[in-house]
Amino acid sequence: MECAVRSRHPTVNCPVAVSRIMRPDDANIAGNVHGGTILKMIEEAGAIISTRHCNSQNGERSVAVLARVERTDFLTPMLIGEVAHVSAEITYTSKHSVEVQVTVMGENILNGVKRVTNRATLWYVPLSADNVHSVVKVPPLQYSSPEQEEEGRKRYEAQKLNRSESKQRNATIIFPTINVEPCTVGYSQSSLIHLVGPSDCTLHNFLQGGVTMKLMDEVAGIVAARHCKTNIVTASVDAINFHQKIEKGSVINVSGRMIFTSNKSMEIEVVVDVDHVLKSPQESAHSVTAFFTYVSLGKDGTALPIPTLKIETEDEKKRFEEGRERYLQAKARRTGEVTKKCQ
Amino acid sequence: MECAVRSRHPTVNCPVAVSRIMRPDDANIAGNVHGGTILKMIEEAGAIISTRHCNSQNGERSVAVLARVERTDFLTPMLIGEVAHVSAEITYTSKHSVEVQVTVMGENILNGVKRVTNRATLWYVPLSADNVHSVVKVPPLQYSSPEQEEEGRKRYEAQKLNRSESKQRNATIIFPTINVEPCTVGYSQSSLIHLVGPSDCTLHNFLQGGVTMKLMDEVAGIVAARHCKTNIVTASVDAINFHQKIEKGSVINVSGRMIFTSNKSMEIEVVVDVDHVLKSPQESAHSVTAFFTYVSLGKDGTALPIPTLKIETEDEKKRFEEGRERYLQAKARRTGEVTKKCQ
Amino acid sequence: MECAVRSRHPTVNCPVAVSRIMRPDDANIAGNVHGGTILKMIEEAGAIISTRHCNSQNGERSVAVLARVERTDFLTPMLIGEVAHVSAEITYTSKHSVEVQVTVMGENILNGVKRVTNRATLWYVPLSADNVHSVVKVPPLQYSSPEQEEEGRKRYEAQKLNRSESKQRNATIIFPTINVEPCTVGYSQSSLIHLVGPSDCTLHNFLQGGVTMKLMDEVAGIVAARHCKTNIVTASVDAINFHQKIEKGSVINVSGRMIFTSNKSMEIEVVVDVDHVLKSPQESAHSVTAFFTYVSLGKDGTALPIPTLKIETEDEKKRFEEGRERYLQAKARRTGEVTKKCQ
Repeated sequence: MECAVRSRHPTVNCPVAVSRIMRPDDANIAGNVHGGTILKMIEEAGAIISTRHCNSQNGERSVAVLARVERTDFLTPMLIGEVAHVSAEITYTSKHSVEVQVTVMGENILNGVKRVTNRATLWYVPLSADNVHSVVKVPPLQYSSPEQEEEGRKRYEAQKLNRSESKQRNATIIFPTINVEPCTVGYSQSSLIHLVGPSDCTLHNFLQGGVTMKLMDEVAGIVAARHCKTNIVTASVDAINFHQKIEKGSVINVSGRMIFTSNKSMEIEVVVDVDHVLKSPQESAHSVTAFFTYVSLGKDGTALPIPTLKIETEDEKKRFEEGRERYLQAKARRTGEVTKKCQ
Repeated sequence: MECAVRSRHPTVNCPVAVSRIMRPDDANIAGNVHGGTILKMIEEAGAIISTRHCNSQNGERSVAVLARVERTDFLTPMLIGEVAHVSAEITYTSKHSVEVQVTVMGENILNGVKRVTNRATLWYVPLSADNVHSVVKVPPLQYSSPEQEEEGRKRYEAQKLNRSESKQRNATIIFPTINVEPCTVGYSQSSLIHLVGPSDCTLHNFLQGGVTMKLMDEVAGIVAARHCKTNIVTASVDAINFHQKIEKGSVINVSGRMIFTSNKSMEIEVVVDVDHVLKSPQESAHSVTAFFTYVSLGKDGTALPIPTLKIETEDEKKRFEEGRERYLQAKARRTGEVTKKCQ
Repeated sequence: MECAVRSRHPTVNCPVAVSRIMRPDDANIAGNVHGGTILKMIEEAGAIISTRHCNSQNGERSVAVLARVERTDFLTPMLIGEVAHVSAEITYTSKHSVEVQVTVMGENILNGVKRVTNRATLWYVPLSADNVHSVVKVPPLQYSSPEQEEEGRKRYEAQKLNRSESKQRNATIIFPTINVEPCTVGYSQSSLIHLVGPSDCTLHNFLQGGVTMKLMDEVAGIVAARHCKTNIVTASVDAINFHQKIEKGSVINVSGRMIFTSNKSMEIEVVVDVDHVLKSPQESAHSVTAFFTYVSLGKDGTALPIPTLKIETEDEKKRFEEGRERYLQAKARRTGEVTKKCQ
């Protein structure tokens, strides 16, 4: 934290940087770092800067908890031995939430080459350090211009709408049968169970959002590898909303299934269920849902064609069409951005 | 966790499945996953399903604790990059114990081949969540046939007999007993062995210096805690030289012993030996040596007095005096720095 | 990496900052972060900045390897939940070595208080990325003043002298020498100590049975590898009973020794002792015992012959015969199962 060292009076919005070397356990067998490892680092940087901001005034002490991640694109894969630099900055605050924008750079320390591998936007809500059910007020951010504030407000309203919609939508029930026929939905669907331990948790003893995202990416990666049996990497993650807190000692069930395939990409839906082992037996609720897009890479790093998903039921067909819709929208947005940049 | 998702009223005996990809750190240098990694996953699945079962009725909340594992065979090795699927099922319950049977399958996700690698039987006892000394009653299992129950009862009686026998048998003492006289050098000396895995290494596949230092501090901390039986913290580390490279797959032996105690501090020498397990038998060389200074902290954070080290041999006496010399030099240097700063 | 982000032409000596939140597993039971965790972060930051510097000119690619750490003082303890900020800067270069100075700050993100917890000086040597035996030339550093360079040179000469002295000094041998005759029991026997941390425990804060089994297998594997110096894998584990609960913060001692060898397998006994470090001095009890069977695998996956265990004492002979008995029983049981299946 340079600015912390440089200045005796660190400003509220001093950026946070989290860096570390990518090790063999961070990567798949082809040497590509799992998207989940990056998502976890992004969330840690976000949690640090937003918690720091929320405690920058003399008020109630609070811990910032992840409420939402906006859609995230993985621009280029990170490799073992590279250094991942994650820098986070606060870009908007509402009364009860903080927007953090994060940039991830991969640095090859042997040849000095650096490149941006990800950009992400996260929303945090501060909960009282003493009472996890109480939301604390966020100190206002100093904006450099009225336009900056106005644009932040628009992003805030948009995510608020999307969040409340996702809360109402009934979470989809994933698990049907295992199918032995390759390229079907049943063939590649996968799930894992994880017992939430102390190192997975925040100071409040609730599951850290970044840990959830890492597990989700792990399941999505297994589904993708089962479907196309090649070296696969995360290309993007759709917006994820965290509606429910998951406490230490819970068992979570993370399930994924293939929804849609295009020529060069596949979309996997991942659902997290919580099983509060020690509580009432019925309590089992969908907690988090997300769509992961994966691509398959050949030895030279170019995208390989993806086997088409075999649709067997009406429900699968409906989901496939919804997936196609999201795919076309994302494509249009990318084209739009490029057009905008070129103007 | 299929059935948990399918039904809103999960039956008591719904199987549990834990899956994860085998990572480089899970395996030895030949790529075979350590049996211990599999045993750990088996036990986690068993603990989840038996804890869930014991809390399936409205009674006292409890946590299931492992009491026994039956003989386990490893049928075929698991490899890095494969997915291990561990599925657990409850097969018998007595008044106070639960029998869980676990099957482990290895799946090569690139070619879709699956095979059974292990089967295991575990026995759990539920202890109250509030009072770890109180055993809680187990809800009865629904059996599909009287024969199933009868066979379970036989297994239960057999393991009960074996358990009580093993309790009576005096455990064999394996190693040269350490000095039992408190405060002697022999009393607190400690050592650990560590297998150098992929994540411990640099890009050259040699042990990272920082990992060595972390292990050295771990041993020094155990020596210090054994000596003074209080909360101890590292106060300083003397200069450390790294003369020798240690390669991936080596076994290192990290040993520590108390050298010197002053009123408020203690000095521990730590030595790292390299054991090139798979190479020539003679090769075992001291690689790194360092002196760690620890202090003991009371609840208010102030330094507590340290019990004086009991010296028993001429060699220990010589080392104690050398330690005192280093202690006095460090003290003089600190005083010098303070004086310098105040000028 | 702020300066990397800010500037398109990062200077050679751009500082490196590594930050992360301190988690329960980083600390002892009193909540103080282990010095070793900090030392590991310090070294990672040093390795990144010196590797980057050594590759900053168009020359041979190299990886910087730690050669020496100067004496390090821990000024105040770091606590769980704080953020550790480690910033590293290059302060001197000789022809073949790099001096890095590191500052560690602890930040309490709830109240914003920051303080310096450590300062350290490390020396790195760049080794060729292609040939680990070849030292590469270090690009010269730009100094801000001749005094800065002169002081660096003095530090360089001082550490060089100390390094060469320490190389000549014979390292002290600490521990009871093991039997040097290959294939004896004493030759391969091994033990490790492990501090029971939060992630090793159940919700009750007692050591999880699966973690114990993993450590036991780790020791058994080292005994087996020391005995036969080949790729070894776990073939089976005899029944294990868990009679005693082991609480968080305990130190356990896991010891293994070779008991029996047949043509193609070897049996290792593993004993777990509990050392309630912070409690009564006498309390040290055997907690768990088990017999592990290992086989040795050739490159094609077939079982290799095992060197016969050399028996030296009556006790070893008795144990060897008991091991043979278990071996024959297991063999008979396997044959019986096969016969049964074929009927």
